[in-house]
Amino acid sequence: MENEPTRVMVAVNESTIKGYPHASISSKKAFEWTLKKIVRSNTSGFKLLLLHAQVQDEDGFDDMDSIYASPDDFRQMRERNKAKGLHLLEFFVKKCHEIGVGCEAWIRKGDPTEVICHEVRRVRPDFLVVGSRGLGPFQKVFVGTVSEFCVKHAECPVIIIKRTAEESPQDPADD
Amino acid sequence: MENEPTRVMVAVNESTIKGYPHASISSKKAFEWTLKKIVRSNTSGFKLLLLHAQVQDEDGFDDMDSIYASPDDFRQMRERNKAKGLHLLEFFVKKCHEIGVGCEAWIRKGDPTEVICHEVRRVRPDFLVVGSRGLGPFQKVFVGTVSEFCVKHAECPVIIIKRTAEESPQDPADD
Repeated sequence: MENEPTRVMVAVNESTIKGYPHASISSKKAFEWTLKKIVRSNTSGFKLLLLHAQVQDEDGFDDMDSIYASPDDFRQMRERNKAKGLHLLEFFVKKCHEIGVGCEAWIRKGDPTEVICHEVRRVRPDFLVVGSRGLGPFQKVFVGTVSEFCVKHAECPVIIIKRTAEESPQDPADD
Repeated sequence: MENEPTRVMVAVNESTIKGYPHASISSKKAFEWTLKKIVRSNTSGFKLLLLHAQVQDEDGFDDMDSIYASPDDFRQMRERNKAKGLHLLEFFVKKCHEIGVGCEAWIRKGDPTEVICHEVRRVRPDFLVVGSRGLGPFQKVFVGTVSEFCVKHAECPVIIIKRTAEESPQDPADD
């Protein structure tokens, strides 16, 4: 029963705090939950596949006040975004190494729902862990979440880790 | 990180083959998936909470041809149903003991969706595993499944284990 490690894909994203290239509360919680409740001390039994789906619109929003005067400015912006994504992955990969659990991490640009489902088809994890901000009852009716989409469409079992109320930031923009 | 075991609730049910008191293919698959992909060799790190939500209507259907002439007949029927439920749980508990993973198993009568969500609130597992027959695209629109209901309403993370096409019986009644 202990041949290949169980391959767990964890979808991670950035906090939406402007200019704050850190993991979102919900993806950090999903990652930590996976280590605490699933991997536990059995570090050789699991491999984490850390996928950062980088939203392109959000990157544009970050750069609303920027002035683009030359092709070089765009290249610099792309490099800045790449650096942010790498910084995010570094956080998770470092934690995995500290604990001694194998991992792979990569970035894909695009709509998170499409990116995640596409990458599930490509790398075939045993299951997928997605954090969720846990929308309120009013939002639930009108807004589909990334996690709900994944449950329906990802071609592998999916587990959604919702935040508790205490874990939500006071200002939703700090998420 | 290795104090209390991770408490995994697995919802199990009977095969719908008439008079065949065995686990359904989908709940057997969910159980085996949990052992193979989550518990692995770390048997002391997990405790399985095996909940059998026994549908009352189905029991009635099994006894369509029976004649009830005295209160005793009903008592006998209830005892027969109880025996079937116990037989089902015995299957799972035996497997857990063979592997050496701790478990608790119990039966609750009622609508599986309500029973499962109620028991999640009561025993507070770390997560819930539910098997799914994986309805076709046509059925999906009109029929909600127990597993979908649990994802939305159970107060803990939920992972749905779908069967593959090969695991589905040719006759849906043999499920």
